[in-house]
Amino acid sequence: MATQKLLVLPGDGIGPEVMGEVEKIVGWFTKQGVAKFEVERGLVGGAAYDAHGEAISNSDMALAQAADAVLFGAVGGPKWADVPYSKRPEAGLLRLRKDLGLFANLRPAICFPALAAASSLKQEVVEGLDILIVRELTGGVYFGEPKEIVTLEDGSQRGIDTQVYTTGEIERITRVAFELAKTRRNKVSSAEKHNVMKTGVLWKQIVTRVHKAEFADVELEHVLADNCAMQLVRWPKQYDVLVTDNLFGDILSDIAAMLTGSLGMLPSASLGAEDPATGKRKALYEPVHGSAPDIAGKGLANPIATISSFSMALRYSFKASEAADLLDKAITNVLAAGLRTADIKSDNTHVVGTTAMGDAILKEL
Amino acid sequence: MATQKLLVLPGDGIGPEVMGEVEKIVGWFTKQGVAKFEVERGLVGGAAYDAHGEAISNSDMALAQAADAVLFGAVGGPKWADVPYSKRPEAGLLRLRKDLGLFANLRPAICFPALAAASSLKQEVVEGLDILIVRELTGGVYFGEPKEIVTLEDGSQRGIDTQVYTTGEIERITRVAFELAKTRRNKVSSAEKHNVMKTGVLWKQIVTRVHKAEFADVELEHVLADNCAMQLVRWPKQYDVLVTDNLFGDILSDIAAMLTGSLGMLPSASLGAEDPATGKRKALYEPVHGSAPDIAGKGLANPIATISSFSMALRYSFKASEAADLLDKAITNVLAAGLRTADIKSDNTHVVGTTAMGDAILKEL
Ligand SMILES: CC(C)[C@H](C(=O)O)[C@@H](O)C(=O)O
Ligand SMILES: CC(C)[C@H](C(=O)O)[C@@H](O)C(=O)O
Repeated sequence: MATQKLLVLPGDGIGPEVMGEVEKIVGWFTKQGVAKFEVERGLVGGAAYDAHGEAISNSDMALAQAADAVLFGAVGGPKWADVPYSKRPEAGLLRLRKDLGLFANLRPAICFPALAAASSLKQEVVEGLDILIVRELTGGVYFGEPKEIVTLEDGSQRGIDTQVYTTGEIERITRVAFELAKTRRNKVSSAEKHNVMKTGVLWKQIVTRVHKAEFADVELEHVLADNCAMQLVRWPKQYDVLVTDNLFGDILSDIAAMLTGSLGMLPSASLGAEDPATGKRKALYEPVHGSAPDIAGKGLANPIATISSFSMALRYSFKASEAADLLDKAITNVLAAGLRTADIKSDNTHVVGTTAMGDAILKEL
Repeated sequence: MATQKLLVLPGDGIGPEVMGEVEKIVGWFTKQGVAKFEVERGLVGGAAYDAHGEAISNSDMALAQAADAVLFGAVGGPKWADVPYSKRPEAGLLRLRKDLGLFANLRPAICFPALAAASSLKQEVVEGLDILIVRELTGGVYFGEPKEIVTLEDGSQRGIDTQVYTTGEIERITRVAFELAKTRRNKVSSAEKHNVMKTGVLWKQIVTRVHKAEFADVELEHVLADNCAMQLVRWPKQYDVLVTDNLFGDILSDIAAMLTGSLGMLPSASLGAEDPATGKRKALYEPVHGSAPDIAGKGLANPIATISSFSMALRYSFKASEAADLLDKAITNVLAAGLRTADIKSDNTHVVGTTAMGDAILKEL
């Protein structure tokens, strides 16, 4: 049985609570012999700042570099509203993404049948929804330089952010999107603002070229990011795989998540390039929801998004797709049986806390 | 009776059709003595490119500078997909915004009672919705330099866009938002990404300062742009005035428009600074929808967004709020009577074309 190193970074807010449930599940899969998961734990975000003044320490970064997969909870909260910009909780997450080279962020937006009614959208608009957003995660306005605030002679200030994209960066995320589309409904929609942004012009051009040269059998459509946001609200089922840049991906994936009524349910995977020698890739798995400081420590949080992120780890990092299917099925069954955390409760369901939900999924396995 | 110069720029696609209906209404208000509207016409977008190789000519720009208000239709379409970047249809609109200094883009997102059922959202989520988005329109990533695509030595390319905001730019749009909130439900929400962008850090800081110094009696909340997109989908009625930058405003206002189910109904106003000497401000009025090339020339387009944009002109440029109320009421009455263009049709309504809708509103006046 192969040894697989997991680095668990619970982070802030509800992070530690939901990650506790995941660790039980990880233990179960070790016992089953899927892999020998060796779990190490580190600090990130406000928790890391409180402990040693940085949003992630160099030694935890080294653990992340050495890990086969990182399981990430959530970061941030009002407690750290005034820490310096470079030490804010989010800086830990951004450093992990950048230093591990996790350029491909996969965010499935799935409407669980049992939860369609929880959406603010009409049932027929979201029922059966299954979109995969492929967001570029290590480029764009998140990391481009200059990124600064300059004080001018008259005392006024000027803020600057720079969005940069290169041919290589766009090519590799485009390939990820097309490869995934081939395993799904064979359609890619690419969102940018080529009518206003030069990075959008380049994006559209390169997606078109990669499509023609390597994936001509997959359907491709280009959509302006603002129109895409509209279309997600109007009729989201028109999309299969949606590929876009870091900033548009941030917004469009949040919209897609909210449509499903399943925000507390949605996982994500952030993947690096495959090492040609070992066939391995760096990876971080993270729920789409945030640290929810308002309910932190109360045992109310929904652990499903984080558990489901571990299912993505089984699939993408450990090539254990049967184990992933098993875990996904356990989640579906528990929901079908009417169990709910408070965020997804509805009529005729039974509301339980974080631990009870984790235990129910474990029992279902 | 004061003479007021209107420059009409119908543009492309359905632009000329819907603008034709507005001109009838303008004529009616002249006859009523609200003002002596002198209408001139110009070209913008693909229409201007076809005529003289630029998305707007210098002489039409001079007319726009001299006008008391510009009425703008829509620009763009597949016909001009391959024109050079600097001559693309959108360049005409962007030049108008920039050269006229139209920094304040006001986009009301109103759910017309008669249309609540047309939304993809549940009725209770959108019924009665009335948000005003105040989008900064002459700064940010739309206009910052460098904005270019560079070819590198190895033949690969790099695209760059630059987002810049200064203290002064943020202060003036913030003031517009607070002033408008005072005439409404007294609440401003400011959206940025201060957790990732330095322009977001500056934005949040200056909004906070202007609030404290000048508008402490108005409620202010800060929201991250990605979360704001989510919240618009979840429960949009939490917002009153939403102030944000050029790019986030582009996306968030499109989401808000789509929520209402009234995309073909929504107007916008783009305003410059008030000239302290004359009390006048440059202004452009424009429907939120685009040029809809698929239905252009068929007489099917909904003219209400453009007519309603003229109502905003009456209000903001001509201080004729009674006339504006009259026009708004006429629109509401026509809808209440069951008249619809195809884009907003539903059960028990009577579908008519562009001209019939324009005539019905005229008759109702
Ligand atoms: C926490 C924040 C830095 C992050 C982002 O903007 O990428 C979050 O919104 C996300 O989408 O993962
Ligand atoms: C046409 C385009 C340049 C424009 C924009 O991006 O501002 C449009 O989307 C809008 O919102 O007015």
